[in-house]
Amino acid sequence: MILTVTLNTALDVTYTVGSLVPHASHRVREVAERPGGKGVNVARVLAALGHEAVVTGFAGGPAGEALRGLLAPLPVRDALVPVAGATRRTVAVVDSASGDTTQFNEPGPHVSPAEWAALLSAYEELLAGADAVALCGSLPPGVHVGAYADLVRRARTAGVPVLLDTSGEPLRRGVAARPDLVKPNAEELAALTGAREPLRATRDARRRGARAVVASLGPDGLLALTPDGAWRAAPPRPVRGNPTGAGDSAVAGLLSGLVEGLDWPGRLVRAVALSAATVLAPVAGEFDHGAYAELLAAVTVSEDTAAA
Amino acid sequence: MILTVTLNTALDVTYTVGSLVPHASHRVREVAERPGGKGVNVARVLAALGHEAVVTGFAGGPAGEALRGLLAPLPVRDALVPVAGATRRTVAVVDSASGDTTQFNEPGPHVSPAEWAALLSAYEELLAGADAVALCGSLPPGVHVGAYADLVRRARTAGVPVLLDTSGEPLRRGVAARPDLVKPNAEELAALTGAREPLRATRDARRRGARAVVASLGPDGLLALTPDGAWRAAPPRPVRGNPTGAGDSAVAGLLSGLVEGLDWPGRLVRAVALSAATVLAPVAGEFDHGAYAELLAAVTVSEDTAAA
Repeated sequence: MILTVTLNTALDVTYTVGSLVPHASHRVREVAERPGGKGVNVARVLAALGHEAVVTGFAGGPAGEALRGLLAPLPVRDALVPVAGATRRTVAVVDSASGDTTQFNEPGPHVSPAEWAALLSAYEELLAGADAVALCGSLPPGVHVGAYADLVRRARTAGVPVLLDTSGEPLRRGVAARPDLVKPNAEELAALTGAREPLRATRDARRRGARAVVASLGPDGLLALTPDGAWRAAPPRPVRGNPTGAGDSAVAGLLSGLVEGLDWPGRLVRAVALSAATVLAPVAGEFDHGAYAELLAAVTVSEDTAAA
Repeated sequence: MILTVTLNTALDVTYTVGSLVPHASHRVREVAERPGGKGVNVARVLAALGHEAVVTGFAGGPAGEALRGLLAPLPVRDALVPVAGATRRTVAVVDSASGDTTQFNEPGPHVSPAEWAALLSAYEELLAGADAVALCGSLPPGVHVGAYADLVRRARTAGVPVLLDTSGEPLRRGVAARPDLVKPNAEELAALTGAREPLRATRDARRRGARAVVASLGPDGLLALTPDGAWRAAPPRPVRGNPTGAGDSAVAGLLSGLVEGLDWPGRLVRAVALSAATVLAPVAGEFDHGAYAELLAAVTVSEDTAAA
């Protein structure tokens, strides 16, 4: 079983409008809702790859209830911890003409110390049955900034490989707790290390404590610095589409590959193929299964002995 | 008791953001929710004026539940009829710097024939105890375009004075059913009659069936053509602020004045004062009680013998 933790889950709402005009009134043509939050996306992709996936984190209020209702028919296990506050909505307003999206993200529920303690207790219990764990996304209000560092340490104590995918100060603290893997994008890496050049920033992130760093370079694929060597993996050609959820699919590729005992090149090929197939899917956060199968054979991976 | 009917109730959500940038991602600083829909606003103002106010219409889904939860502590009686579909949300995105608002309105629940029949039955029962009724706002999907005309006829049969405040085809059909009063704004009047000039359009609206027409001319106040004469009423000076809900406050002023037996000038003064005090209130849909008291003495009303 692979566990994903999403402390700030979301009900992702999409509004389709004719065209967004600031300070005007818009008739929403279509409202779509889906379960959201990075770890929820990761779990859905893991399940599509045939893995048993369990989702934990917090859920509360009407949006939390709606989120759990949408999770129920999916092949992921809901182990979310109830909170008194309300799970956030994210509202994506899509211009039907251009396809451009304007995003509004609510802050999320205030989490009390007792609710945090309940999450820790659920987490410890779930870790006992987990082959790997992914810690994903932003922190809701009230959760201390060292929360991911705490969860990383507990995973290490339990002997469960742990991947951390967050940003800002929670990433900085989490990296210092020595996770097995972090998967920052270029912007997150630069914020963490102060370095703009990806190789330099990735090296610096390892020095800060991460055993392995897989840097997402957007359309250029992935750069991996690991104890076993350094690799670059890229799709055969740039893909165009909706990048929402592409990073979450890369996380699912890396973790599923780890659990299946693939070597690093195998994990990276899978991560790049899933990520590109997610960009190609019409619905944000899902992946194109046909494109994934084709890309698996076409992604290039090369060892970078100079970088290692 | 005054009854207000809001077929397409709403949960009004306000997002405060730094500044709205199309096609960017926004962190919402503050989320506020309030019970919405024109008739709900009218009932709240009626209650603040000391009237017993009852709200009917449809409510369903998570937003309907939240709406009813927010209505519960208010001094209005909730007689909303449950529907299987989900009550709509409206999302107002407010730029914290400029105060400008960008509005997104969901369409509302699909109402089945059985649900419409349940509404009619609740309406007939409530009419039996009503001194006046206001029919307010847009129609949700599935409700036939002649729905307000039907509700107008039933109110007339029951001998209850009926005010209609809607737009487009539902207004056109509703006016033909001979309501006691319609309160269109300049745009709604022009759409109904094809005439841009307010006096001409207001006269035409009466010819189409409304016993009295009170046209809202925005900052210029109200123009009333009634069986008893014609009047113009205006605030002493233009007021600046948030016009959301100003029309609903005017409806509450007109109906409460009718029920209290005020003459037309008295009703119009009250409607203009309430409307202006609503524009002056910091929160959309509420009114400034101090300003209302001052404005009651300052609103000018003049008979327009040429117009009558």
